[in-house]
Amino acid sequence: MSNVLDRLHQVLESRKSSAAQDSYVASLYQKGLNRILEKVGEESVETILAARDAEAMGDNSALVSETADLWFHCMVMLAHMGSGPDEVLAELDKRFGLSGLDEKASRTSGE
Amino acid sequence: MSNVLDRLHQVLESRKSSAAQDSYVASLYQKGLNRILEKVGEESVETILAARDAEAMGDNSALVSETADLWFHCMVMLAHMGSGPDEVLAELDKRFGLSGLDEKASRTSGE
Amino acid sequence: MSNVLDRLHQVLESRKSSAAQDSYVASLYQKGLNRILEKVGEESVETILAARDAEAMGDNSALVSETADLWFHCMVMLAHMGSGPDEVLAELDKRFGLSGLDEKASRTSGE
Amino acid sequence: MSNVLDRLHQVLESRKSSAAQDSYVASLYQKGLNRILEKVGEESVETILAARDAEAMGDNSALVSETADLWFHCMVMLAHMGSGPDEVLAELDKRFGLSGLDEKASRTSGE
Repeated sequence: MSNVLDRLHQVLESRKSSAAQDSYVASLYQKGLNRILEKVGEESVETILAARDAEAMGDNSALVSETADLWFHCMVMLAHMGSGPDEVLAELDKRFGLSGLDEKASRTSGE
Repeated sequence: MSNVLDRLHQVLESRKSSAAQDSYVASLYQKGLNRILEKVGEESVETILAARDAEAMGDNSALVSETADLWFHCMVMLAHMGSGPDEVLAELDKRFGLSGLDEKASRTSGE
Repeated sequence: MSNVLDRLHQVLESRKSSAAQDSYVASLYQKGLNRILEKVGEESVETILAARDAEAMGDNSALVSETADLWFHCMVMLAHMGSGPDEVLAELDKRFGLSGLDEKASRTSGE
Repeated sequence: MSNVLDRLHQVLESRKSSAAQDSYVASLYQKGLNRILEKVGEESVETILAARDAEAMGDNSALVSETADLWFHCMVMLAHMGSGPDEVLAELDKRFGLSGLDEKASRTSGE
């Protein structure tokens, strides 16, 4: 699973080309940043509601699906702004020492 | 960077043990699901505002940092509910054919 | 303007009757609480983005319109749950001493 | 209750003066629009979670309190931007014909 975010980022970048104007992602790029951010907000609320449903029903499948929607639209936002998931993962690594270059830290450090 | 999410998930799981009760993550677990979801909501709003600032100022660094905060708290939510990032990545893979087991699809498919 | 919220609440209550099943509000009631809360979340994000646009452009008209959408969907939520705007106004009054029964307090007290 | 919003708006305007620099509202004005909008976002998520709790527990008191927090911070946002609740109520009236100048419409029209 480890390269899914990289590959998704490549797909999102490819959707910026004129040949991809009929895709959902291309339509989001065209509508602009506010529409992309509205989607980030909508998916975060759907994730929050799905978490409450998951707790009530003992089934995480919709929660996982809504979290995927949220992360997907975050990645559309990042690609639209000229960034990608590696920068987000590097930021998490910097805080937590998680990259494997620094494996000992990941076994001992806190947050 | 590819294993940062896995390693972060291991850290989040380790924070469930009684020996880690003084960490920020342990305090979130103890406050319960509503407090974790409030943080997901807060970080999504901060991400949205950071994206508008990034567009106005031409600097994505705060946007990357806020997105890391949002994903981090999503991962706390998932760990608290007994799930992890691999399930989210598998959902993205299922939709996009991105895992590398299916590399040809990632070069040709849409979303 | 002072009785707009009361009158809107009356309209929202009337939409619960079987004779009103074709209205937008009746369709929200039928879809249930999660759909109503998704709308509250969507409208709050649209309000936040409209405030940033208003600041950038010096025009509050879209901000006022989005805030009206947000308060409207809050009132649908309250009506669906069996409450109304008077309870919200009474809560604000209790905190601030604003009702006019207590006019002196409103001229001198803080928050 | 009908004049609570007007009176609250007067209080919020008075907090813009230099004599009120120690109040919570004055501190929000000083922190600026992003901090005010973060509060609008936080309170909307707390309202959404309170609605789910109210449904589960059959008690709307926390939902009413969180909705009051949300409307309060919307009014801080409006005051900060140079608008007030009357503009929001006028927008709702324009859509629904609720002001009492047009009472017949309020008894017959939809949304």
